[in-house]
Amino acid sequence: MSERLVCGIQPVREAIAAHGSALRVLVERGDAPQLDALARFAKDRGARVDRVARAELDRESRGARHQGAIAYAPPLRLRALEALELPDASARERALVVLLDSIEDPQNFGAVIRSSVAFGASAIVWPEHGAAPLTPATFRASAGAIEHAQLCVVRSLPHAIDALKSRGLQVIGLDAAGERAVDALDLAKDTALVLGAEGAGLHRAVKKSCDAIARLPMRGPLASLNVSAAAAVALYEARRQRG
Amino acid sequence: MSERLVCGIQPVREAIAAHGSALRVLVERGDAPQLDALARFAKDRGARVDRVARAELDRESRGARHQGAIAYAPPLRLRALEALELPDASARERALVVLLDSIEDPQNFGAVIRSSVAFGASAIVWPEHGAAPLTPATFRASAGAIEHAQLCVVRSLPHAIDALKSRGLQVIGLDAAGERAVDALDLAKDTALVLGAEGAGLHRAVKKSCDAIARLPMRGPLASLNVSAAAAVALYEARRQRG
Repeated sequence: MSERLVCGIQPVREAIAAHGSALRVLVERGDAPQLDALARFAKDRGARVDRVARAELDRESRGARHQGAIAYAPPLRLRALEALELPDASARERALVVLLDSIEDPQNFGAVIRSSVAFGASAIVWPEHGAAPLTPATFRASAGAIEHAQLCVVRSLPHAIDALKSRGLQVIGLDAAGERAVDALDLAKDTALVLGAEGAGLHRAVKKSCDAIARLPMRGPLASLNVSAAAAVALYEARRQRG
Repeated sequence: MSERLVCGIQPVREAIAAHGSALRVLVERGDAPQLDALARFAKDRGARVDRVARAELDRESRGARHQGAIAYAPPLRLRALEALELPDASARERALVVLLDSIEDPQNFGAVIRSSVAFGASAIVWPEHGAAPLTPATFRASAGAIEHAQLCVVRSLPHAIDALKSRGLQVIGLDAAGERAVDALDLAKDTALVLGAEGAGLHRAVKKSCDAIARLPMRGPLASLNVSAAAAVALYEARRQRG
């Protein structure tokens, strides 16, 4: 069976919003208003809903925190890079793509996906080796955002960068040692942002492929941010410049 | 004994930077270069250092992830709000204070502290009720940043807001339903940013005390960010405006 387990109220809600009738949803029995509302929302969207005992959810969620709700969703669709849909030249919105270089922590992985979707990035790209897997922990940290993003797993990040460049995107790497401040770059153009792992930063081959390396303006005794905080800031800066 | 357990390489490093000779540090025996460097750094700063077996670290860290290094640090100093040091009128740097309304998750609590310090906030204020406690998980998520911040626990957040206003700070609450975009406000002035819990948002009494409520510019199907991502973005915006 290739169904995908989604756990937690917000992730289940986003899965319903994205997949509706393709879903089977289990909601804990009882009279919690939040769970009642979720069950109604699921029914309205055509999902199959069962109210069950907490013990069944505990068993089905296999240890993940479920908050009284789980769903069996279709597998996430992973695209080839060539199949990535980007706005064409006539579209009002410019492309914003996020590339992840060695983000191994599912919590950070999910949090970056959430910020990406919240600030209007249309796609997340990561290499098949050395990245966090798509687990229930990732889905939960993404708060369901992962249901709304184009997801793309590639063999080689430098190759993917070249391919995106040839489609007209500028590719900006984020690194504490970047030569330019992120707000000194024009992010209103079609842009891909490349985020590296904490500590290690971007791989050398990845860095070399980028059009520019940008840093965040920091101050004080700390030299670096958590990668999900850095992602949120860079995505915000792009959104801010796009008005 | 009122010593405070600090676990993990980065948190221990920041504790050494902040407290030096007041520290006792345990580092795992062996020849890991990172741990050798940490032990040298500790000695240089006058800390007492013991190289010990992994089993001792496992025992002493009481289940927290230690990465081969722990420290016993002096208790964190919690200040009264009146004792908060703010830049005076002649200082070049303007005040930036972060207030936390009901951040209950130690991971988020620590992450917000880290972003605050990285973007130059000088103080973190939170109410004694309904906030995450200062646990090893908080210290670890802050990556040691907590050693560098002024920390202030107050009885009432609305009272604290009034006190900061009377010291000349504008107080800006962050809320998805805010009437103004965060970049439309002048954050170069002495400012306190108030961050609410995910989902629930700011308490009504807190919101009423603020000078303005700001939102982050979002786009797409998601209405909210993780609180630590929102914090990073608002702090970045202040830093950006301050140049």
